[in-house]
Amino acid sequence: MTTMMKQWVMASRPVGLVKSTDFRLEEVPIPEIREGQVLLKTLYLGVAPVVMRYMTNETDFERPMNVGDVMIGRGIGQVVESKCSAYKVGDILQTKLGWREYSVIEDDPYYLTYKMRNTDLRASYGVGALGLNGFTALVGMREICQVNPGDKVLVSAAAGGVGSLAGYIAKALGASQVVGIAGGEKKCQMLTTQLGYENAIDYKSDDIPEKLDQYFPNGIDVFFDNVGGELLDHVLGRINRRARIAICGRISEYLIPPDEYHRPRNLYRIGLKDAKMQGFFIYDYKKRYAEYEDQIAEWIREAKLHPLEDIEEGIECMPGALISLYEGTNGGVRMVRIDTNIDTDGNDNKPHR
Amino acid sequence: MTTMMKQWVMASRPVGLVKSTDFRLEEVPIPEIREGQVLLKTLYLGVAPVVMRYMTNETDFERPMNVGDVMIGRGIGQVVESKCSAYKVGDILQTKLGWREYSVIEDDPYYLTYKMRNTDLRASYGVGALGLNGFTALVGMREICQVNPGDKVLVSAAAGGVGSLAGYIAKALGASQVVGIAGGEKKCQMLTTQLGYENAIDYKSDDIPEKLDQYFPNGIDVFFDNVGGELLDHVLGRINRRARIAICGRISEYLIPPDEYHRPRNLYRIGLKDAKMQGFFIYDYKKRYAEYEDQIAEWIREAKLHPLEDIEEGIECMPGALISLYEGTNGGVRMVRIDTNIDTDGNDNKPHR
Repeated sequence: MTTMMKQWVMASRPVGLVKSTDFRLEEVPIPEIREGQVLLKTLYLGVAPVVMRYMTNETDFERPMNVGDVMIGRGIGQVVESKCSAYKVGDILQTKLGWREYSVIEDDPYYLTYKMRNTDLRASYGVGALGLNGFTALVGMREICQVNPGDKVLVSAAAGGVGSLAGYIAKALGASQVVGIAGGEKKCQMLTTQLGYENAIDYKSDDIPEKLDQYFPNGIDVFFDNVGGELLDHVLGRINRRARIAICGRISEYLIPPDEYHRPRNLYRIGLKDAKMQGFFIYDYKKRYAEYEDQIAEWIREAKLHPLEDIEEGIECMPGALISLYEGTNGGVRMVRIDTNIDTDGNDNKPHR
Repeated sequence: MTTMMKQWVMASRPVGLVKSTDFRLEEVPIPEIREGQVLLKTLYLGVAPVVMRYMTNETDFERPMNVGDVMIGRGIGQVVESKCSAYKVGDILQTKLGWREYSVIEDDPYYLTYKMRNTDLRASYGVGALGLNGFTALVGMREICQVNPGDKVLVSAAAGGVGSLAGYIAKALGASQVVGIAGGEKKCQMLTTQLGYENAIDYKSDDIPEKLDQYFPNGIDVFFDNVGGELLDHVLGRINRRARIAICGRISEYLIPPDEYHRPRNLYRIGLKDAKMQGFFIYDYKKRYAEYEDQIAEWIREAKLHPLEDIEEGIECMPGALISLYEGTNGGVRMVRIDTNIDTDGNDNKPHR
């Protein structure tokens, strides 16, 4: 039995975009657990843009990352040893595993641990449709945007982790039209052929205002935004009465200083149109994750939602998988499979240690 | 018995700010009513900034005003003759009376008629605290801003029709601090001595960012905005996590073209702080007016809310009362008493014809 494992630590705090030298791979012993703890074997790690915010400590996070710390990251792991009454061997948990092959967690609110319910579906969905990506898409579309039957809906970064699920969810809630924005012909084709969008706008080559006018001749009811900046301004210029805008991300602004942010012309239309714009933080909704998981699992079983996964293999891939997110190269939910021995269908839920 | 009455019509569509020549006073016969109609004697007419939007037809109103039409305006009237089963002689109604001494209405949704319940209180409150001003302040503070105990609250145009009630309502909902913004020393004194605000900021003489930093060293939880523009931007720069901003009005922008509107630097903070910004239209909440009226009446009886009224006398005052609103001269709820024979305590609810 192996006694050593690999883990990534933050080698330096990023300046500008993260780069490979900001990370260092270490080999360390698999930890022992104490009373009240469980040992998890990492199955999949998610790759989410928020990780860079942890590294730069831009926001006032509860526990900021420092140089030398194990990289923070959520994923799904299986309990292989338990001295904690809350979790038993075999349970599949979504939690703050960190970028490592095994991790020790406790039944502590810090970890925001969520025990998966729909384990008949692929385990990898725990990083995507049945995890925070899916819950974020559902909260944004249902709680924030309150999509109603007949709404005309727009999603930006529509081929990304959350966006690849948001279009399906809007349709499942009754939207009459769902348009996605993504970069490049390949991703735009993905939107209309694999991700349930009726129309796609290519922000790299299309005239965005012209395309918005073409696809929304009667205005936009709902905008699920992952981009911010000038795109948001174009949309504000075309919102309908009682429109709803969920601010899920602002990827256009993550790499530039605030004084270079686009200054919108059309903010006044929020008041003029009795519209709503709202940011949200998915952890504020954690009491409802079980309900969200069951709803999305039901849509998957009914073939109303088809998760698209973008899986890389092996813990060595982690930094590159994160860096390339900012280069806009992925389609679907980006994740890395860490336990390369498990069945990719995710039906092998037995302990793997 | 008199058979003639006075009424104001729109003489020309305003260009820029409304001016006195945009109105014409006429003398016409008091109308006869048909089956299904009631005749109302006007007691008080409200003076609201939205009237200019009706005149310019800036928004897509259901029935736009044309030159020669009787001026649209809400107020309170008493039923003096009824051929409509919905209303009986003596009822006090809030409705679209128009700027005239008598009016005929029907039981039609267009009029958005609301029958007053708390007629033991002053009838004039029907234009203010127990009418759309009060309901707007309550919807903004409670439904949109969801004021919670301990919240730090800011209100702009705080001495105005809605603002003069919003501070009291925030306190009644448990806000720990309520700061108002108004123009001029007199109004600022009014805020802290008559309108329940702890602190006042004078936008004409104070350094607004400095005062915001002084009164909100730990940030702003709730902003009830009637002004928009640069002030809104300053506030966005100081919002707390999960802050809520109700866009009730944008008086800073009503008199300039959109391309001169302030372009905010700080909109990105809506996403960064998981905050909400929302406009609203009080008529969208009409099913709940009775509940709102009863709640505000209760606060008045408990002396938690003290309505401040700014009453002018006689229908001849109407254009001047509206025009001076845009010059920022009022404090409290601006209205004009039309039936100058009624008891100013409003306890005389008998028919006056």
